[in-house]
Amino acid sequence: MLTLRAMNATLLRSLRYSTRRAASCTISFLLLAVTGLHAAGAGTVERWDRFEVTLHAPATGNPYTGPGLRADFSFEHRTVTVDGFYDGDGTWRIRFMPDAVGTWTWVTHSEIAALNGKTGQLICVPPSGKNHGPVAVSHVYHFAYADGSPYYPIGTTAYAWVHQGDQLEETTLATLKSGPFNKIRMCIFPKNYDYNKNEPQYYPFPRDAAGNNDYTRFNPEFFAHLEKRIDQLQSLGIEADLILFHPYDRWGYSKMPSDADDRYLRYVVARLSSFRNVWWSMANEYDLMKTKTMSDWDRFFRIVQESDPYSHLRSIHNSGPMYDHSKSWVTHVSVQSSDIDKAGDWLSQYRKPVVYDEMKYEGNIPKRWGNISAQEMTRRFWLATVSGAYAGHGETYLDPSDVLWWSKGGVLRGESPARIAFLRRILEDGPGGLNPTADRYYPNAGIEGEYYLYYFDVNGPAEYELKLPAGGKYRADIIDPWAMTIAPVAGTFEDKTKIPLPGKAGMALRLRRIH
Amino acid sequence: MLTLRAMNATLLRSLRYSTRRAASCTISFLLLAVTGLHAAGAGTVERWDRFEVTLHAPATGNPYTGPGLRADFSFEHRTVTVDGFYDGDGTWRIRFMPDAVGTWTWVTHSEIAALNGKTGQLICVPPSGKNHGPVAVSHVYHFAYADGSPYYPIGTTAYAWVHQGDQLEETTLATLKSGPFNKIRMCIFPKNYDYNKNEPQYYPFPRDAAGNNDYTRFNPEFFAHLEKRIDQLQSLGIEADLILFHPYDRWGYSKMPSDADDRYLRYVVARLSSFRNVWWSMANEYDLMKTKTMSDWDRFFRIVQESDPYSHLRSIHNSGPMYDHSKSWVTHVSVQSSDIDKAGDWLSQYRKPVVYDEMKYEGNIPKRWGNISAQEMTRRFWLATVSGAYAGHGETYLDPSDVLWWSKGGVLRGESPARIAFLRRILEDGPGGLNPTADRYYPNAGIEGEYYLYYFDVNGPAEYELKLPAGGKYRADIIDPWAMTIAPVAGTFEDKTKIPLPGKAGMALRLRRIH
Repeated sequence: MLTLRAMNATLLRSLRYSTRRAASCTISFLLLAVTGLHAAGAGTVERWDRFEVTLHAPATGNPYTGPGLRADFSFEHRTVTVDGFYDGDGTWRIRFMPDAVGTWTWVTHSEIAALNGKTGQLICVPPSGKNHGPVAVSHVYHFAYADGSPYYPIGTTAYAWVHQGDQLEETTLATLKSGPFNKIRMCIFPKNYDYNKNEPQYYPFPRDAAGNNDYTRFNPEFFAHLEKRIDQLQSLGIEADLILFHPYDRWGYSKMPSDADDRYLRYVVARLSSFRNVWWSMANEYDLMKTKTMSDWDRFFRIVQESDPYSHLRSIHNSGPMYDHSKSWVTHVSVQSSDIDKAGDWLSQYRKPVVYDEMKYEGNIPKRWGNISAQEMTRRFWLATVSGAYAGHGETYLDPSDVLWWSKGGVLRGESPARIAFLRRILEDGPGGLNPTADRYYPNAGIEGEYYLYYFDVNGPAEYELKLPAGGKYRADIIDPWAMTIAPVAGTFEDKTKIPLPGKAGMALRLRRIH
Repeated sequence: MLTLRAMNATLLRSLRYSTRRAASCTISFLLLAVTGLHAAGAGTVERWDRFEVTLHAPATGNPYTGPGLRADFSFEHRTVTVDGFYDGDGTWRIRFMPDAVGTWTWVTHSEIAALNGKTGQLICVPPSGKNHGPVAVSHVYHFAYADGSPYYPIGTTAYAWVHQGDQLEETTLATLKSGPFNKIRMCIFPKNYDYNKNEPQYYPFPRDAAGNNDYTRFNPEFFAHLEKRIDQLQSLGIEADLILFHPYDRWGYSKMPSDADDRYLRYVVARLSSFRNVWWSMANEYDLMKTKTMSDWDRFFRIVQESDPYSHLRSIHNSGPMYDHSKSWVTHVSVQSSDIDKAGDWLSQYRKPVVYDEMKYEGNIPKRWGNISAQEMTRRFWLATVSGAYAGHGETYLDPSDVLWWSKGGVLRGESPARIAFLRRILEDGPGGLNPTADRYYPNAGIEGEYYLYYFDVNGPAEYELKLPAGGKYRADIIDPWAMTIAPVAGTFEDKTKIPLPGKAGMALRLRRIH
């Protein structure tokens, strides 16, 4: 009888498939059995981690457009069908993110004989460390990880950071590591715009010498690089809000024929949906992509929804007119707007989380969307919070090398991230799921009878008279969102009461029930 | 032949009428002639100053509801009919504000024989000193004095200042004298509200011991006091934006029967329309006066419009829903709103000046409308200015004696008035009539090809690239509205150009064509 090691070596040689975990993750894998003519591979993978099956079949014709590959992953009476993808050099891969602890079996299906009928097992073990699973909508207006722990999106934006070469990309990761952000909006395609004229290191499609794209094929190197960065984000606890299309383009990616669009979407979802920290954003500023119609956007949503076995979060980002976020495939409202006071209407209208992903950028560039003050950025984060919504950051300070965080990443220079970190700590120290309360005399969000967070914005009352729910006693803290101080107010408060305040604009107030 | 002095004494005794100028103004008067059975009095009065005819007739019945008195003032082929009014103690007065230099003749008409058929002359001489005449709408969206000099409303609010007794009222006048304001919103009726529980010194109608009003009569002392204050405002160059009705009442004035409302309006207009610094505001927060209907407000406007020979400015102030300012009798949009960005829409919609008379109050009281910061008040003044609109100030700082400027007057404690004075100097140093320009990339108002005033609000660009009209050279100044500094930018600018800016939010920019 073969030893396991020998079995493994034999299988690798003779059947040319393997299971492995992507580069940045470690996985101990184990081959367990051979069933009939088919090889059965088994690995151990954490719940919500990535399991990968690698198969090999010589490419004939164009493997990106020919017969595909999929696998059924079964757990008890449930089966999840997952698309595989061609990764170049005769290599095919199937990636899977198990969502239940226990033993899963899998079997492949393909019209390509060498890829068909392969089977195996995987042992899904409980998550460890910071693995809380993917983020989904929770309690209508909020988010949570799959393990139930709350997730408060504190996003930033660096559209083209993965197209800047290793040195700058590593700098960006180091900045993110020490920053307050747990989500980043980033484009799959490279970007062409002011301050963004450099060529990317990798292109998503093969190109000829004249720069003509072959949209019928993909460039595996491009995606391997992207995947490495997404995994690095994951290790930092950062969700990758992946922007699938955007208008700032000189290579042709914004004007592909619709069959190329659709193939691109399916390929991306096949490659990336098993990354638990992925969100899908159909577009940045969809309305500026004049070659796409509304039915294109609807179709893109459906393709992603149909292809993604895990239902990662899906939205779309506007420049001017908003997409109709009431459509069923939209999981949350991702919006570009400086009108933070519309949050309440949108929450009521859509009954989905509202994320102000773009509220202009802290910075000093001539573009009017790119030069608000750190104070204003901080203010907008607080306004969004006490409106029951969430906010996103970005930064655009002029730089002699044109390295602006908003697009290329690099380092942060602004003064808002420290304040955003302060707000994040307050949120994480709270009960989560803050909704607008019935009493909106001053904007506040909270959980009735338990917790209230006020932000007074331009108002600077010297005292605040309010009626707290009968039967509870509350402690109050005066929060200075800019100075980043929290000062308890002496005494307790209950029923109809007056709370002394600093008489100074821009303050916040936290009320927490103590008994 | 009688000497003029003797004629005068004789006439005073026998005909019991006189011409005189109201208390605060001086006028040399001269009796010139007797025509037939009627006495002819003549005075010299400045254009837009007040000429007053005093007549006497013993009161029979209720002189406020019986036959009235009017006079026709004629200048060449033009006749202006003016209502007189009963001023108590058998005294009747007719007040007239001549608008043309030269000799006017007048004749009275009344069913009361002793008041009928009196005639006289007045010599209208050119205005002197700061007498520029009444303010009217100019160039669609703006204001000017009758002599053509521009008027930029820089208003404040002290609703009940004339009901506080002489000591505080004199303090208020002293504050106004040294302040930046050239308009004050003030109520005719006393006010009942938080911080406003004191009884007024005078009541507009006679009251019995139980406080029941006789709405069929007026209290001349009340009006004489009010008139004294309006004249004092005039001497300070301040327009009195008189609020005719308001909801904050415990005496009954907000719930009078409609015949009393109408009589009150006619009486007020007869007494006050000859004061050149009077504006008519039908109401403060008309929509909170639940006893009045929209047709009441329309009728009030019509009564004022029909009764006022001089067409003083007319508007009405809202709490929530705006009155329909497109109605023909509204001269300008007086609005309570913090949405300064609606100015452009309202200017387009109404084609009338827009005055943000209430944008909340600088202060620290618990009411959310009464505790914005001085920075925010300053910001709103600038936003209104660069939107082509005008703004009004108010202040509500808690006071141990409940003397809050917004209502009682007194002294100003805030930090915005100095900044408002700074803005006023900039406006007065400019060409006037600033309209929103076609290029709204950053909010600005100006006169195309001549003058531009930008306010960058939350934006802090480090440079601004713009296209100036070809053929002109401009100088630029960086204005700091809070620090109150004006710093010229080196060089001149023309055509498509870039102007270096401080890269700091809250700045303003002035561009002036030099050739």
